[in-house]
Amino acid sequence: MGADRALPPLAPLPDLVLRPLVQGALTEDLGQHGDLTSAIMIAEKSMTEAMIVARENGRIAGLDCARLAFSMLDPAIGFTAKVNDGQDVTAGQEIVQISGNTRAILAAERTALNFLGHLSGIATMTQAFVVQLRGTKAKMACTRKTLPGLRAVQKYAVRAGGGINHRFGLGDAILIKDNHIAALGSVAKAMQAARVSAGHMRKIEIEVDALVQLEEALPFRPDVVLLDNMDLKTLTAAVKMVDGRAITEASGGVSLQNLAAIAATGVDVISSSALTMKARALDLALDFTV
Amino acid sequence: MGADRALPPLAPLPDLVLRPLVQGALTEDLGQHGDLTSAIMIAEKSMTEAMIVARENGRIAGLDCARLAFSMLDPAIGFTAKVNDGQDVTAGQEIVQISGNTRAILAAERTALNFLGHLSGIATMTQAFVVQLRGTKAKMACTRKTLPGLRAVQKYAVRAGGGINHRFGLGDAILIKDNHIAALGSVAKAMQAARVSAGHMRKIEIEVDALVQLEEALPFRPDVVLLDNMDLKTLTAAVKMVDGRAITEASGGVSLQNLAAIAATGVDVISSSALTMKARALDLALDFTV
Amino acid sequence: MGADRALPPLAPLPDLVLRPLVQGALTEDLGQHGDLTSAIMIAEKSMTEAMIVARENGRIAGLDCARLAFSMLDPAIGFTAKVNDGQDVTAGQEIVQISGNTRAILAAERTALNFLGHLSGIATMTQAFVVQLRGTKAKMACTRKTLPGLRAVQKYAVRAGGGINHRFGLGDAILIKDNHIAALGSVAKAMQAARVSAGHMRKIEIEVDALVQLEEALPFRPDVVLLDNMDLKTLTAAVKMVDGRAITEASGGVSLQNLAAIAATGVDVISSSALTMKARALDLALDFTV
Amino acid sequence: MGADRALPPLAPLPDLVLRPLVQGALTEDLGQHGDLTSAIMIAEKSMTEAMIVARENGRIAGLDCARLAFSMLDPAIGFTAKVNDGQDVTAGQEIVQISGNTRAILAAERTALNFLGHLSGIATMTQAFVVQLRGTKAKMACTRKTLPGLRAVQKYAVRAGGGINHRFGLGDAILIKDNHIAALGSVAKAMQAARVSAGHMRKIEIEVDALVQLEEALPFRPDVVLLDNMDLKTLTAAVKMVDGRAITEASGGVSLQNLAAIAATGVDVISSSALTMKARALDLALDFTV
Amino acid sequence: MGADRALPPLAPLPDLVLRPLVQGALTEDLGQHGDLTSAIMIAEKSMTEAMIVARENGRIAGLDCARLAFSMLDPAIGFTAKVNDGQDVTAGQEIVQISGNTRAILAAERTALNFLGHLSGIATMTQAFVVQLRGTKAKMACTRKTLPGLRAVQKYAVRAGGGINHRFGLGDAILIKDNHIAALGSVAKAMQAARVSAGHMRKIEIEVDALVQLEEALPFRPDVVLLDNMDLKTLTAAVKMVDGRAITEASGGVSLQNLAAIAATGVDVISSSALTMKARALDLALDFTV
Amino acid sequence: MGADRALPPLAPLPDLVLRPLVQGALTEDLGQHGDLTSAIMIAEKSMTEAMIVARENGRIAGLDCARLAFSMLDPAIGFTAKVNDGQDVTAGQEIVQISGNTRAILAAERTALNFLGHLSGIATMTQAFVVQLRGTKAKMACTRKTLPGLRAVQKYAVRAGGGINHRFGLGDAILIKDNHIAALGSVAKAMQAARVSAGHMRKIEIEVDALVQLEEALPFRPDVVLLDNMDLKTLTAAVKMVDGRAITEASGGVSLQNLAAIAATGVDVISSSALTMKARALDLALDFTV
Repeated sequence: MGADRALPPLAPLPDLVLRPLVQGALTEDLGQHGDLTSAIMIAEKSMTEAMIVARENGRIAGLDCARLAFSMLDPAIGFTAKVNDGQDVTAGQEIVQISGNTRAILAAERTALNFLGHLSGIATMTQAFVVQLRGTKAKMACTRKTLPGLRAVQKYAVRAGGGINHRFGLGDAILIKDNHIAALGSVAKAMQAARVSAGHMRKIEIEVDALVQLEEALPFRPDVVLLDNMDLKTLTAAVKMVDGRAITEASGGVSLQNLAAIAATGVDVISSSALTMKARALDLALDFTV
Repeated sequence: MGADRALPPLAPLPDLVLRPLVQGALTEDLGQHGDLTSAIMIAEKSMTEAMIVARENGRIAGLDCARLAFSMLDPAIGFTAKVNDGQDVTAGQEIVQISGNTRAILAAERTALNFLGHLSGIATMTQAFVVQLRGTKAKMACTRKTLPGLRAVQKYAVRAGGGINHRFGLGDAILIKDNHIAALGSVAKAMQAARVSAGHMRKIEIEVDALVQLEEALPFRPDVVLLDNMDLKTLTAAVKMVDGRAITEASGGVSLQNLAAIAATGVDVISSSALTMKARALDLALDFTV
Repeated sequence: MGADRALPPLAPLPDLVLRPLVQGALTEDLGQHGDLTSAIMIAEKSMTEAMIVARENGRIAGLDCARLAFSMLDPAIGFTAKVNDGQDVTAGQEIVQISGNTRAILAAERTALNFLGHLSGIATMTQAFVVQLRGTKAKMACTRKTLPGLRAVQKYAVRAGGGINHRFGLGDAILIKDNHIAALGSVAKAMQAARVSAGHMRKIEIEVDALVQLEEALPFRPDVVLLDNMDLKTLTAAVKMVDGRAITEASGGVSLQNLAAIAATGVDVISSSALTMKARALDLALDFTV
Repeated sequence: MGADRALPPLAPLPDLVLRPLVQGALTEDLGQHGDLTSAIMIAEKSMTEAMIVARENGRIAGLDCARLAFSMLDPAIGFTAKVNDGQDVTAGQEIVQISGNTRAILAAERTALNFLGHLSGIATMTQAFVVQLRGTKAKMACTRKTLPGLRAVQKYAVRAGGGINHRFGLGDAILIKDNHIAALGSVAKAMQAARVSAGHMRKIEIEVDALVQLEEALPFRPDVVLLDNMDLKTLTAAVKMVDGRAITEASGGVSLQNLAAIAATGVDVISSSALTMKARALDLALDFTV
Repeated sequence: MGADRALPPLAPLPDLVLRPLVQGALTEDLGQHGDLTSAIMIAEKSMTEAMIVARENGRIAGLDCARLAFSMLDPAIGFTAKVNDGQDVTAGQEIVQISGNTRAILAAERTALNFLGHLSGIATMTQAFVVQLRGTKAKMACTRKTLPGLRAVQKYAVRAGGGINHRFGLGDAILIKDNHIAALGSVAKAMQAARVSAGHMRKIEIEVDALVQLEEALPFRPDVVLLDNMDLKTLTAAVKMVDGRAITEASGGVSLQNLAAIAATGVDVISSSALTMKARALDLALDFTV
Repeated sequence: MGADRALPPLAPLPDLVLRPLVQGALTEDLGQHGDLTSAIMIAEKSMTEAMIVARENGRIAGLDCARLAFSMLDPAIGFTAKVNDGQDVTAGQEIVQISGNTRAILAAERTALNFLGHLSGIATMTQAFVVQLRGTKAKMACTRKTLPGLRAVQKYAVRAGGGINHRFGLGDAILIKDNHIAALGSVAKAMQAARVSAGHMRKIEIEVDALVQLEEALPFRPDVVLLDNMDLKTLTAAVKMVDGRAITEASGGVSLQNLAAIAATGVDVISSSALTMKARALDLALDFTV
């Protein structure tokens, strides 16, 4: 996991944040009656054991959501993770051992796998991007393009994949875009306004799509400059112009194919919505073992 | 849209269902402060006009969610859809014209596009599957493998793509799987139990993975038989064995590549989790027009 | 319990479904202060034992709601049910033994009894109807005429009384009524539209009030026909006309007095809103035993 | 409406209180899809007119809930009440005229009628009790025995029926019962404790079942004495003993049959759980008029 | 604690009431990520011990809120209160000993202290007022002027400070003010209307600002008279005029300076919004002890 | 308003953020019945006009909360603010003109004033602090010591008072405190860990209480240094040592008395919990004008 070396240990999201999300998903699946089929077919006290297994290679994220899906239906269910979030698995590898009431396990199964498969899919895709950055200083970041209601866990999955997060929402940093510059009339005026208003605890980032804009912004000392949709040559020039005075972030048209080339320009961060909006779920299954 | 011919006009989900979902997404993005950057840069009374435009070909779904994202922030925002959900668009095509308070439009933009892009992605992928079914009687169905909290809108997007929905959750139909058969000891016993308990308004489906199981099930008159992971030859034999006595549904390993061949076996329905778990977002943008 | 012989064991509703309902009821009674009187009169650590006792004959339903009312106020309260939901009791019979903190027991008492009395009242009334059906194949069903917010538990109580449920709400089956037929112009057109749109997992029922309508509907193979407000002679003719091609359901003006006669016509299901809208609570009391 | 003469005009409950209740009921019925049948059968823009009509004699309560059921689905629906809550109607009488989008009216119909029928049933039963009190000063009160989640509207319906409400919950008045007296050792000690703790804005009521207890309580000046399960002779003696020093309330075994006799003892208030726990719904229908 | 002698033991608010409040506060502080800094700096399994200590003299209230803040993040955290709500502490005194997971303790710390400091501030200020009442029969009451969302706990803190509560909200007692009198035309008419409508379980209070109004009100036997903004001489005359026929309450311009003088007039209750709207937080700290 | 000159126009919080807060407060006051007294005394259609007036000098904040309190009860109520949030008023000055339904105005009055009085109290106190900073570059900041549930509006009120906000919660910036330094063993190690983990969009602040700690931190380029509880001489030396390489923030023991002296040391920001935890409500009244 060389590419992740510089990253800190992955901190779990608090159960307090996850629980409403998992409860919503369980309620969505159980409806007003619960699992009709198992209520007919499975004895009330029946106990079983099962294993969540990977059906393809990938990186795991979302174990806490899966754990809560089972424990919120029946706190007595045993849930023993064989790997941790942020760890790579191979097809066939055992991920979680589960034991307990059969009805409860069947009722939670789909919700648990929906979380775990989706978030592991994001972690896996992120890791595929991160691998391309080896040997450069660039870090891979996600954006605010996330699925409604799932932002906290999707951004967590990006971290599990070795990526970093951009701001969480509209309220935790300043990001000046073209509309803002247009509204105030110039890069300089926008930067001045931000400087006055941002407060001492918020970073200021400005999006520029040409070197002339970048040149206008730098004297106002933005914390981060977002170099949007620049070709490789312009990116290289931009990094050189910044010369360490701000963090440089490249965005726009980023793909697995061009990622290494973008990183080679020397930018600090590369961001892409693909991590959260274009990842497919990792294929996982819950197999009964007794 | 020949493949959709047999399908009814797409019915909208009630605002009552959508509103909590959109409110959750707006709250997630706006946090406790709202849009800090626009609050600094954009005049409070500033008005603007914008257009949501497709950046690639695809099928649209989620216009009501997008509309609510804007109107829940400012009821005075004009939102004029140029297409309807379920309609195909081409790259560059105008989808929605928006006009109103600039701050509110900027604050709702990302939430609106996150819904519209994700759901249109599902509709687009569904439609790609549906196209493969032309000339057969088979319909394309999604499953309970959906993203947590988004099941209602994802299933709606499948309908917009020309697909149909399987049951919504564990409580609206009986689906007998291998665990249930194992618990009761035989297909026959499971079918009998279901017949007694299902009630007169719920359908009963049974999953079989071999012809011998199918043969055992048919005398109990299941409404639907789920032919799971059968090869094409077995599927063909299964359809023949059923001979119209039940609806036949094929699942397992379905892909764009093998879909037409599966449909050619004569099954009534083909279901796949790919529609909801593996679709990527359709690329859309909100461009300011003044 | 001969009349229930054909019914499966009663499956409990998930705590996840019941808990919000019980919490709402407790909050309603406790308000913002809790139980003022007991806070003054009863020592904080006082322990007691009590028994819920039937004051009249009837059938029990709602024990899980009662259990949650106590345990959500104090998880340490002992709650030992002497009977199960769906079981008949006689006046004076002990139903639940309770032990624990006196203040918590007093604070939960009314909420627990309100649930248990109301749901047992429904189960008791349902059972009175079901008894009239002995010797026929007819089953007794409730409708969507339920008390706001209580549908899931009321329908459960009907099952505890030996009845079956009709659809839960507007979204889990198709029920074509006179307005729908009028809107499309004919029974045939309505059935055709339903057939195209229902999806493979939903049943289609059509309400008819005359034999001519029934005759028009049958070729379209409805799953269920609702024979509304027909006299006994017409009902008999309708059952004969259907001849096993659909499930037959009689409704309209059903009472304990005419139920046996309706069942004797050979219908499969008889439905009535009386089960949920006209049942009176079963008389229960919580008696302190120390 | 002679029996109600002493009562004030009925004050409506705030929409803020009713709206969550109605939303819960609509959500329960519409589920995640809305009304499937109407979505297929009824044109999206179809408009209609309908009338809610009484099918039996009774007293109306719950018009605001019905109004909200329609307007929360479609604010454009016209809802013109022909009577007011608290007013008597006869079989066949028109109650509400409704006009607007057909789909929305059909989707709200059941929820609106479930509220209106249930609450009118309570008002009707209350009024039947109140009529028995004519010529006495006694008022008819409901209790805390109400259906979970519906207390506010049920108590409102009692007022619409000409009754009065006891305390809303455990937190708005002191009611000393046998357990409390037992815990403190005597009526006198319980009254003293209540006097010290009740605060100056809460009333104190004490339940007594014998004249000797009443005699012990009166020197402590309770606001109300609850004369529980006393025979008529004892009740008469109790009222004489109180002699206007407290409000007298009779409870226990109250029925339409014995109500006039109880009132004749001179008690101020008679309370019964029958009003809320044993009322059956009033029979109402929504008839389409075009 | 002489001044509190007449008050009952302080009854705790139910956890059911407090838990949503504490959850809201934790969510507000933790946001969607939890404590970023501790996630980086503190080992996941790190355990610690800490002590909540008073930094100034005062009276404690809010221990249950503080306890829940810790236990809702980690039920395994030890929380041993060294004092009870309603007890006085001196600067440096240990209040709560805490032990458990370091990350969880740090994440809950601020929320716990915000509750405990604010509520103890109210208890402390209330106690300062109550001390001025020694030797009189007057009790100190708070009002409906409370901070949004915090009314239940603020009123509890007043009780912890030795004060009493006025009504909780607009729905649990009748309080006739000048607008009401004006609307009905006279004190007499307002009192008559209240008498008819209040129900037998609600107290009636009337606000008067002149002796002539008081004289008009008394024959209608209000439970409480609110003597608003009267000077000491008028107050004295008012108490004399009432002569025990109603509880007397003084309000308006109450301060620590004039409180004893107001009490000396013989009023039963003195109420002031200062207790809840003008108290400053008590200074508390959480010190790590290992 | 010279001291505020450098601050941007005050941006309103979105209604989406405020509405749940106001709804909670209204519900708290109205309970399950609404305003009992006005329901009896005031005619249902009665209209009135009123004015919110300042009873003392101060700065206004919270007009949007007040507006929502009225409009959420009755959208037809007219609410015309005569001043804006962030504006100073003098005793007797008219703040808001209100007209509409009398019952609704009376029902919303207390909730509106509780918000407006509390938030204006914070703005007023903040402004008193800000005035002391005139002639220096220092800005006044609040902390995370806020009242549970009210953080967003309290921090807004601080901005209305001319102050700035520190981070909103534990998740939007890194703040390294003594426990964190102790856990990692040194300032250097803590700063290194933060640098690796913070992400490119979050600021890093470190709390130091001695110059030697500051010296150790500066090479790691913290964005902000929190100089905690330093005396004026040490503060001056610290500012000199930083020499513009980080933003300097002083905290600990800040009061109106020592504020100017602290600002004179040259620090950029001074933070104090007094703004939110020790402000008393501004005295406001709603006077009826007809």
